[in-house]
Formats: sequence, structure tokens, C-alpha cells
Amino acid sequence: MKARIEVRLKPGILDPQGKAIGGALSGLGYAGLGEVRQGKLIEIDLPDAADRAEAAQKVEAMCKTLLANPVTEDFRVELID
Amino acid sequence: MKARIEVRLKPGILDPQGKAIGGALSGLGYAGLGEVRQGKLIEIDLPDAADRAEAAQKVEAMCKTLLANPVTEDFRVELID
Repeated sequence: MKARIEVRLKPGILDPQGKAIGGALSGLGYAGLGEVRQGKLIEIDLPDAADRAEAAQKVEAMCKTLLANPVTEDFRVELID
Repeated sequence: MKARIEVRLKPGILDPQGKAIGGALSGLGYAGLGEVRQGKLIEIDLPDAADRAEAAQKVEAMCKTLLANPVTEDFRVELID
């Protein structure tokens, strides 16, 4: 099993990295762009995971303790067989 | 319209950030983890985009010129209405 985790800044939290990307794209001539946000994509192989519910719980705990900052970030976990 | 871009290191390219995350998770007591890889998630609002094919082409060009390094990274674009 594999866990796919998306970590995004919460709406309203300033995203300087996203702003820099948006500025660079405008500088390259791409016009008409709205907001740009950058998040993280983390993929974890879980070779020993057999039970889906247990794996989901474990990955959620990982997000809460290390992968996402609960003050500024939201996360979403998806398990892929 | 909104573009959702996933940028990942190509398979086989060393991912020190992913390795660091894997090491930190092991240190926190999460056992039995396989490979950990970290990628980028970029979301771009395209308020003026009307034509889907045109928007896809434009975002693909952005990836090739700025958002992904074609030597080391793969990207995937998804358009959301």
C-alpha cells in the first residue's frame, strides 16, 4: 500500500513561495493568472500495511505529528493499493 | 478554471528531503515504512481561461519553462472547473 499526502497552506495564510511563482510566470509573459499556491506532496510506501483503516489512522497520526503544521496547514491523505 | 500541478522527482533520482522525512518518522517510532518521496503541489487560478485545451497547453508550457526541471522531474497537470 502507498499513502499519498497533500499538505496545503490553509486559505488566508500568506504563501510567499506561491507569490514568487506567480511573479516569475508573469515575468515570463503568462498573463491573466490568478492566485498561485504551493503545497507539498508526500508519498510513503507502506509495504507492511495490510489493514486499510489502520494504515489511514497511522498516516493521519504522522501528518499531525510531523508532516503538517496544524496551525497553518491542512492535509489530505489518500491510500493507493 | 484552476490548474493543479504535481511535480515529482523522476524515479531513481535521489530525494534527500524524502529520506529526511523517512528518517524523522522512524525516529518518532513509525516502523515498517518503505521509501518516502516528496514532491510539489502547485495550484494556479486561471480566471480568464475559457478553453480547456488552450489552458492545458498553457499550463504545460509553464511547467516546461519554470515549474519543473525536465532533467530531474516529472509533472502532471489536472484542470478543475
